[in-house]
Amino acid sequence: MKDLWILHEALRIIDAALTEDLGSGDLTTEAAVPPGTKVTGNYLAKEDGVLCGLKLCSLVFERLGGDVVFTSHKEDGESVKKGEILASVSGDAKTILSGERTGLNLLQHLSGIASRTALAVEAVSGTKARITDTRKTTPGLRALEKYAVRAGGGVNHRFGLSDGILIKDNHIAAAGGIRAAVAMARKRAPHTLKIEVETENLEQVKEALAAGADIIMLDNMSLPAMAEAVSCIGGRAVTEASGNMGDRDARELRRIAETGVDLISIGALTHSVKAMDISLRFLP
Amino acid sequence: MKDLWILHEALRIIDAALTEDLGSGDLTTEAAVPPGTKVTGNYLAKEDGVLCGLKLCSLVFERLGGDVVFTSHKEDGESVKKGEILASVSGDAKTILSGERTGLNLLQHLSGIASRTALAVEAVSGTKARITDTRKTTPGLRALEKYAVRAGGGVNHRFGLSDGILIKDNHIAAAGGIRAAVAMARKRAPHTLKIEVETENLEQVKEALAAGADIIMLDNMSLPAMAEAVSCIGGRAVTEASGNMGDRDARELRRIAETGVDLISIGALTHSVKAMDISLRFLP
Amino acid sequence: MKDLWILHEALRIIDAALTEDLGSGDLTTEAAVPPGTKVTGNYLAKEDGVLCGLKLCSLVFERLGGDVVFTSHKEDGESVKKGEILASVSGDAKTILSGERTGLNLLQHLSGIASRTALAVEAVSGTKARITDTRKTTPGLRALEKYAVRAGGGVNHRFGLSDGILIKDNHIAAAGGIRAAVAMARKRAPHTLKIEVETENLEQVKEALAAGADIIMLDNMSLPAMAEAVSCIGGRAVTEASGNMGDRDARELRRIAETGVDLISIGALTHSVKAMDISLRFLP
Amino acid sequence: MKDLWILHEALRIIDAALTEDLGSGDLTTEAAVPPGTKVTGNYLAKEDGVLCGLKLCSLVFERLGGDVVFTSHKEDGESVKKGEILASVSGDAKTILSGERTGLNLLQHLSGIASRTALAVEAVSGTKARITDTRKTTPGLRALEKYAVRAGGGVNHRFGLSDGILIKDNHIAAAGGIRAAVAMARKRAPHTLKIEVETENLEQVKEALAAGADIIMLDNMSLPAMAEAVSCIGGRAVTEASGNMGDRDARELRRIAETGVDLISIGALTHSVKAMDISLRFLP
Amino acid sequence: MKDLWILHEALRIIDAALTEDLGSGDLTTEAAVPPGTKVTGNYLAKEDGVLCGLKLCSLVFERLGGDVVFTSHKEDGESVKKGEILASVSGDAKTILSGERTGLNLLQHLSGIASRTALAVEAVSGTKARITDTRKTTPGLRALEKYAVRAGGGVNHRFGLSDGILIKDNHIAAAGGIRAAVAMARKRAPHTLKIEVETENLEQVKEALAAGADIIMLDNMSLPAMAEAVSCIGGRAVTEASGNMGDRDARELRRIAETGVDLISIGALTHSVKAMDISLRFLP
Amino acid sequence: MKDLWILHEALRIIDAALTEDLGSGDLTTEAAVPPGTKVTGNYLAKEDGVLCGLKLCSLVFERLGGDVVFTSHKEDGESVKKGEILASVSGDAKTILSGERTGLNLLQHLSGIASRTALAVEAVSGTKARITDTRKTTPGLRALEKYAVRAGGGVNHRFGLSDGILIKDNHIAAAGGIRAAVAMARKRAPHTLKIEVETENLEQVKEALAAGADIIMLDNMSLPAMAEAVSCIGGRAVTEASGNMGDRDARELRRIAETGVDLISIGALTHSVKAMDISLRFLP
Repeated sequence: MKDLWILHEALRIIDAALTEDLGSGDLTTEAAVPPGTKVTGNYLAKEDGVLCGLKLCSLVFERLGGDVVFTSHKEDGESVKKGEILASVSGDAKTILSGERTGLNLLQHLSGIASRTALAVEAVSGTKARITDTRKTTPGLRALEKYAVRAGGGVNHRFGLSDGILIKDNHIAAAGGIRAAVAMARKRAPHTLKIEVETENLEQVKEALAAGADIIMLDNMSLPAMAEAVSCIGGRAVTEASGNMGDRDARELRRIAETGVDLISIGALTHSVKAMDISLRFLP
Repeated sequence: MKDLWILHEALRIIDAALTEDLGSGDLTTEAAVPPGTKVTGNYLAKEDGVLCGLKLCSLVFERLGGDVVFTSHKEDGESVKKGEILASVSGDAKTILSGERTGLNLLQHLSGIASRTALAVEAVSGTKARITDTRKTTPGLRALEKYAVRAGGGVNHRFGLSDGILIKDNHIAAAGGIRAAVAMARKRAPHTLKIEVETENLEQVKEALAAGADIIMLDNMSLPAMAEAVSCIGGRAVTEASGNMGDRDARELRRIAETGVDLISIGALTHSVKAMDISLRFLP
Repeated sequence: MKDLWILHEALRIIDAALTEDLGSGDLTTEAAVPPGTKVTGNYLAKEDGVLCGLKLCSLVFERLGGDVVFTSHKEDGESVKKGEILASVSGDAKTILSGERTGLNLLQHLSGIASRTALAVEAVSGTKARITDTRKTTPGLRALEKYAVRAGGGVNHRFGLSDGILIKDNHIAAAGGIRAAVAMARKRAPHTLKIEVETENLEQVKEALAAGADIIMLDNMSLPAMAEAVSCIGGRAVTEASGNMGDRDARELRRIAETGVDLISIGALTHSVKAMDISLRFLP
Repeated sequence: MKDLWILHEALRIIDAALTEDLGSGDLTTEAAVPPGTKVTGNYLAKEDGVLCGLKLCSLVFERLGGDVVFTSHKEDGESVKKGEILASVSGDAKTILSGERTGLNLLQHLSGIASRTALAVEAVSGTKARITDTRKTTPGLRALEKYAVRAGGGVNHRFGLSDGILIKDNHIAAAGGIRAAVAMARKRAPHTLKIEVETENLEQVKEALAAGADIIMLDNMSLPAMAEAVSCIGGRAVTEASGNMGDRDARELRRIAETGVDLISIGALTHSVKAMDISLRFLP
Repeated sequence: MKDLWILHEALRIIDAALTEDLGSGDLTTEAAVPPGTKVTGNYLAKEDGVLCGLKLCSLVFERLGGDVVFTSHKEDGESVKKGEILASVSGDAKTILSGERTGLNLLQHLSGIASRTALAVEAVSGTKARITDTRKTTPGLRALEKYAVRAGGGVNHRFGLSDGILIKDNHIAAAGGIRAAVAMARKRAPHTLKIEVETENLEQVKEALAAGADIIMLDNMSLPAMAEAVSCIGGRAVTEASGNMGDRDARELRRIAETGVDLISIGALTHSVKAMDISLRFLP
Repeated sequence: MKDLWILHEALRIIDAALTEDLGSGDLTTEAAVPPGTKVTGNYLAKEDGVLCGLKLCSLVFERLGGDVVFTSHKEDGESVKKGEILASVSGDAKTILSGERTGLNLLQHLSGIASRTALAVEAVSGTKARITDTRKTTPGLRALEKYAVRAGGGVNHRFGLSDGILIKDNHIAAAGGIRAAVAMARKRAPHTLKIEVETENLEQVKEALAAGADIIMLDNMSLPAMAEAVSCIGGRAVTEASGNMGDRDARELRRIAETGVDLISIGALTHSVKAMDISLRFLP
């Protein structure tokens, strides 16, 4: 959570979330909790997983300006077991209660992403394949979600439309073929970027290779087709397996990795997130 | 999508998502697609589900200012089958390609929520129980996610901390007991709001009832305990079943509904979303 | 001024006011006051009243970043007499002069509201009636104005359209009658909210009662009609007197309170504010 | 309302007011009014006054995007009588109900300012004195409030600290005397601006005149002192009467005007506003 | 000016510039021009150059909402001669006068950039070298300034720190040498990006080549050194000449191009802009 | 850099510039520089000039939140020689590298303006003429650019359309003559402002004088015409020489000053800026 952009995004997202949740004030806390009350509580893992975003809970309390001490016992990217205490918080009850849900929503969401990523990374460990993400992220949360993928051991694909060239099926349709699309891109794209092309069969792979693609995405191919494509490419371009990778179990992911692809991109890492169960319990 | 606030939030979210994704421009489309190209495409359901947010794809193109015609064939809340065409779009290729992912991300996310809600609603159909949501929403997307719960047939719980009083375990701990918390809330809360209290066992239910709670949440209780609580309350307060309801299958949800509770709240509707698979395919 | 939302709103309003007033810089101070000048001054009450918003003057100077020490001698909600010193300020003359008007504008406006509210509260003291406000607030200042009503001893009505249901004459006209409006609201409103209905005569009161209204507003009724309505309702709903209450003097307000109503709402508390006269005088 | 800046400010203020009032949606209207309902209503003057801001009600409905037709029957600056119909509105009930209060709040506030200004203007009619305003405006509403002063027949003083030089008592104290302050201002101020000095007695008037002030403010002086000051200045500087002018009745204002001052500035025009009573009534 | 991002940036910049210039209104026009006045005027080139940004003048008037017709006679990227009419405008005098300077400031600035770029492009015509820009752009105007470079016939280098990897002297110092920096970058950078390294002598060129740099910047080298570097690289990396290129005249630029470099980057294109002289003259 | 508005603008501009440059993160620094690296560097003047904006480099690092110590060795407005060290910076390499360009862009731009202004001021030293600027500033940077003019020894003309009245050729054309324009302005303008009129020949000068102009701009006149105009005006109005003053060399400027004009306004000070060459060099 030290990176400048991540921190900046975290603050922006926390502010928006607090505005959304606090509205014109926390009625319950103001109605039911005596001013000046002090409390202490623990963040507990209620299932196994990989942690990501604990710092965000702390930032929420800072943002609310309350007199709160937050102590992390774990770090982003660390595996935790059900029942473990992740952090402790103590101080002004009003601040902690008003910010509790906002912090937990983020922590659970990001830890869900990190945990799922870690499962995929483990599935392909020992092969050269790396697990990567896509642009199928939750609107507004991309910076944090891509950070969570890294916390889970994955690597990031491009961050948006402006920092990478990926010619997909619809671009190819609009441009009138792979050859035409790559040729035009070669001419007009900044010289600092590689060109990636999405292919769906061996014929397209060969066309992309001939057109000079730097990276070739193998989309929705069968295992044998993928293996043949990797062999045909023979290291002349980076290869990326793609297409419903989120529906594959660990054994299937491993087989894909064993075809020799360099990257496996999984949209479901960020578009189909199961929150990790974490709760805050006040001490009596 | 006609509601004023929903529309307002949709525009805000689309603008933020486009900023996030477009950055300094869509390099691929500008590099690989000839200016002036026109295309036509269909949005396809790639699995069964309940639709929510089609209008957002159309708003994305409007926001980009391009010359695009978008025609919906389905409506929010409608069940659709794998393979069905949901909408058609035709016009400026550059606009459609630059906005494609932003629209799809929202459509898939909201349809995922609507679909899961619809499953829960169907599971309890015939009982008096209604399915409701929580504040465990994605930061910044609450308005749209709560709209998707309604599209799926659910009803909304409070929208934030400022429009409902829900005294939870941590409030009770901070206030020094249910009786003290409810008494203080009764005195300080606006006269327009009901008071809800979270309880974990029959003793707390009785205490809440005695304190005059308008709504009693039965949190993480066993089926027999829940039935006993409902019977003990005897209609003197609204009842709400809660606690890991997202982990229950249809049969378990039905059994909970059959205890006679008025509401079943499921945080997982919004905090553990599996996107519905929908794609945009250009016609050749 | 400790409440999180109030503070947040105060900062937003101060920033807007400074932008409005400073424009491209304080020409007078930059032209006429030598850099580095230090001054000391006192805030003086120039008439009797109830104070509200002193802290805002201090926040203005903080926001301007200057080297200024601000010392409050009074608190929000405290009655002050003409001639009393409310606070002292000393430090960088440029900062104090540039922010003086912005702080005073807020202080005078809020103290005007608190003072007027206090007069109404005093008028009904000893009865069970409480003084409350409306949504007739100055655009953008609602949070602070409702805070000032509380400082003056009043209680707040709903904060906006989204945290209370108040079916008014125009809603009834649009819905086709009280019965229809309440029935529809009962079905569609969140289960956490009470339903208030505006009535103008005894017939409507009975209709609202029959429809199950939780709160009944008695709008523009004569004293005898109001008394009869309160008696007819007999505690089955909360009662609220309303309608040009700002034009009644203390004796009239007391008579209204003595009909037994629970609340008296006065739009003029916030929509017709006479600023309290307060000034800042530099010591020679 | 045609002026570019006024329109720009009006839209900004309306957006902020709608955000404040709508929060997460208009619960009452959504709960109690059937979708698709159409209504027609009239805006009625409930007391005599000078109208200002009718256009704002129309802008509110435009901003909400609803299908609403708004027809003005009067113009800003026009005198209206109790009972007159000011405008008509018809169309989507939901839009009209959700925006009603926001529009009326502004219309009543600005008409209150215009009405009070008109009374002061009338009081001095026939003399050369003009009525002007101050910077004691409601934070965020200055543009509209100064527009309302013009609608009432007044003229505007400077808009903020950056478009006029007014050396007040505290500046003089900080600068070490009138002579020093004016001399420094003459040297450092932009050559496009006149220099105004606040004076409290004849001695200061003479000092300001000697220092070369272009405009001299006569602050809190008795009538004879003011007359003597005007005579002493003898046209060599513009004169402005100031100081609790809001507490003077029509006869007193006239006497002040008859001393020969060029301007009478009244802070109360904007800092102590009594809203004009205007309502919207739906036709049955 | 059709590109989505350019249009978006143009609107943002125009809004900010209008806010900056209009402040609380255009005093001169409101004071000196009768309402309803209509005028017609021509935009005239007062020196030779390459046009860029004419559309922005039109957008300014649209943004001000006035009744104005704007007709372009030239296009971005077109060479124009002193005395030529570039566009005509007619309609509401108030709108045209209030927006005149804001539009001209942008038009003159961008045309200045395009004109200077065109001179450099012409100087190297016939060689393979392309003229490119840097990140030394005016804060807030980068999108428009890079667009102007393209209008002048240049190509764009990276848009910001997040869409290209350029290891400069200070990175090398911080990383402990070229080899270490490139190796670390190779490992941690996204797979979609090429790696560029800044070198100052032949030794560094060789080190960069050995480290596997995709692009090698030849910074502040003499002509012979540059020629030797290009020859040594032998097409194995893209070459970019850099370092005070803005101080070279046409003959020097050509000699640099003739060394065989692929790109010549000139910071002065955007950091030392001489506005092109263009004026708006009203017809009598 | 102590002035409140300047600081406020500086922070706004720095934030915008960082957003523009950082995008989704500094790829190079993150890829090539080991975390935790510490560096020390010097800011060097690479040509003679007058410094302006050093503080901005420091603010950039503060804004990035890094652990950086910045020590200025020179002040704004100070003349510096090629080779002099202007400031030193040491600390976190990542922060310094990510913010380096943003700070330098501002420093070079403002120092370019200050340097050019200083040359003009020196050219007219000994005469009574002062050098002033125009509204031909870079959109969004006006506050800083006008500050730089002051750092170079110039004085500022009006900041925008709302704090000065300058009736130019197009206003005169639209109003139907100088007399009509000045008469209308006199009637409608705030009493706090002087009225300036642009003239192009002696006839217009006389017309402006007769109409009562407070300031007369002599636009694009020959030296003899200017001298005659100054003599004709004879101190009854302030005089300002204008029109392509940026194209005059020092001797020509001096001759203009010697005609006796009070002010010489030079648009090129801000619209045709040559950045001063300044660099940051890390110590080995």
